[in-house]
Amino acid sequence: MQNRICSLFNIDYPIISGGMVWCSGWRLASTVSNAGGLGLIGAGSMHPETLHEHIVKCKKATNKPFGVNIPLLYPEIEKVIPIILEEKVPIVFTSAGNPKTWTPLLQAHGIKVAHVVSSSKFARKCEEAGVDAIVAEGFEAGGHNGREETTTLCLLPAVRQATSLPLIAAGGIGTGAAMAAVMALGAEGVQIGTRFALTEESSAHPNFKNLCLNLNEGDTQLVLKKLAPTRLAKSNFLNKIRSAEDAGASADQLKEILGKGRAKKGIFEGDLQEGEMEIGQIAALFHESQSATEIIQEIITDYRNTVITLKQDLF
Amino acid sequence: MQNRICSLFNIDYPIISGGMVWCSGWRLASTVSNAGGLGLIGAGSMHPETLHEHIVKCKKATNKPFGVNIPLLYPEIEKVIPIILEEKVPIVFTSAGNPKTWTPLLQAHGIKVAHVVSSSKFARKCEEAGVDAIVAEGFEAGGHNGREETTTLCLLPAVRQATSLPLIAAGGIGTGAAMAAVMALGAEGVQIGTRFALTEESSAHPNFKNLCLNLNEGDTQLVLKKLAPTRLAKSNFLNKIRSAEDAGASADQLKEILGKGRAKKGIFEGDLQEGEMEIGQIAALFHESQSATEIIQEIITDYRNTVITLKQDLF
Repeated sequence: MQNRICSLFNIDYPIISGGMVWCSGWRLASTVSNAGGLGLIGAGSMHPETLHEHIVKCKKATNKPFGVNIPLLYPEIEKVIPIILEEKVPIVFTSAGNPKTWTPLLQAHGIKVAHVVSSSKFARKCEEAGVDAIVAEGFEAGGHNGREETTTLCLLPAVRQATSLPLIAAGGIGTGAAMAAVMALGAEGVQIGTRFALTEESSAHPNFKNLCLNLNEGDTQLVLKKLAPTRLAKSNFLNKIRSAEDAGASADQLKEILGKGRAKKGIFEGDLQEGEMEIGQIAALFHESQSATEIIQEIITDYRNTVITLKQDLF
Repeated sequence: MQNRICSLFNIDYPIISGGMVWCSGWRLASTVSNAGGLGLIGAGSMHPETLHEHIVKCKKATNKPFGVNIPLLYPEIEKVIPIILEEKVPIVFTSAGNPKTWTPLLQAHGIKVAHVVSSSKFARKCEEAGVDAIVAEGFEAGGHNGREETTTLCLLPAVRQATSLPLIAAGGIGTGAAMAAVMALGAEGVQIGTRFALTEESSAHPNFKNLCLNLNEGDTQLVLKKLAPTRLAKSNFLNKIRSAEDAGASADQLKEILGKGRAKKGIFEGDLQEGEMEIGQIAALFHESQSATEIIQEIITDYRNTVITLKQDLF
């Protein structure tokens, strides 16, 4: 397969594993990269020294390109950037913040930069900031999410119209058929979070994986809209948030209920009572834990078959 | 083009115009049918005698198959069904209710029946009820909407797994590229609401069309979740509902704010202050009023080009 995303990152398949908090360590990232995709380490849940360790281990585990995802509002970002540069990480995905701040420095060191957006307005800002690629992520995605609630199906054509940059689709994608769907809408690659979060190589707790592999449609919900919209799987904690929101809880009241460290508690420690379980809508489609390698092979085969079938139906 | 939806309804292209309240009269329905798609008359906003008149006019305006959309919770349904039978309407789309109630009677009169669902659970119930086809409609759709907030991208593969019936996708579809996207996910046809609601042939008020042709991303929102989830365009009335919901308004309080006849006021009378403006997220992509004929031709060309491009990129 050859397109702008493959060339930009020097990878075989335009399939990227999202840099998910408490899931995306060196093991998942290197497995995805070794399978021909692009694996991302999720810096959002790591102290700088932990991230450093994961980068070193990832480099030992693969000779293929890999990347790091950094939420730009991350409090220790000033310590993280020098590690990225020193370790010569070839690719950085940024999110949640202004892409103008760090993109020039990273690019000056030969790093390719992609930025995650949830609207075409932010996509235009990415183009001004000079990023190398854009990830457009829709409402169905797990975890932190855009305020406008635009779904992947509606977001992609809008972003495709707004910018000519290489475009990666995210949110609601877990199969080759979905990859074909978003490619039809103008994407040139996919970032997959949910399905990779539930693989054997994900560092999430088995309780979290089991919960998410047993979800049905409607079992995730976008909540905390008065703070930062976040998609969570059904749980005791989600119920608590929903009740408070239904009763009109203010941002301050929600902040108090949320407290600190809920995502770690849920995803990494597997606390099904008090933890925050961040996962995407598409989880409802998957019910068995697989290896990331197997998933990538499955997606490629499924993608090819889907496109060939579409073509056959045409004439 | 040949597939199960084309054969079932005896149409050239598997493109259906939704039966939208206050938009889908005989003019829009007959134009879509004459252009090779399937036009639906929306009974939801018509008294039985008005519906009768629209059916008679539609039959005069086209020799091609057309249909009527009936929300099954419609209060005058007992008067509507005999009109459908007497006028030998060939196709009925039902929604918002139990498909078991009327499907057998309609089919006994040779009528093809499709039912609209927002989850695979309801898709399975449709299969039990013996309907001829299923419409799976996602969160991005305008107007009344499912409680589970499943987007079209996540809903289609789930419904496709749940049933082998002919499957029509709805919600977020307005272009041939989006048609290719949902066909990749297993749909065999598309139901398009929003884009047809804003055509020259739609009976909506010019104020409504102008408002909707000038929306940006994020300018529609799903509200009234404590009553019946409904997607509305930004307006004075939407603001009023949002404020009440943010403050924790109960279902009864929302019912009081909603009152009666808001959709007619907004869509048909063009009251931008007090009216309810039902429209889908994809409206943000379209900024000029076109004829329904032109749209169908555009979609077909765009669909073919999209599929051919996908195929070329593959090898």
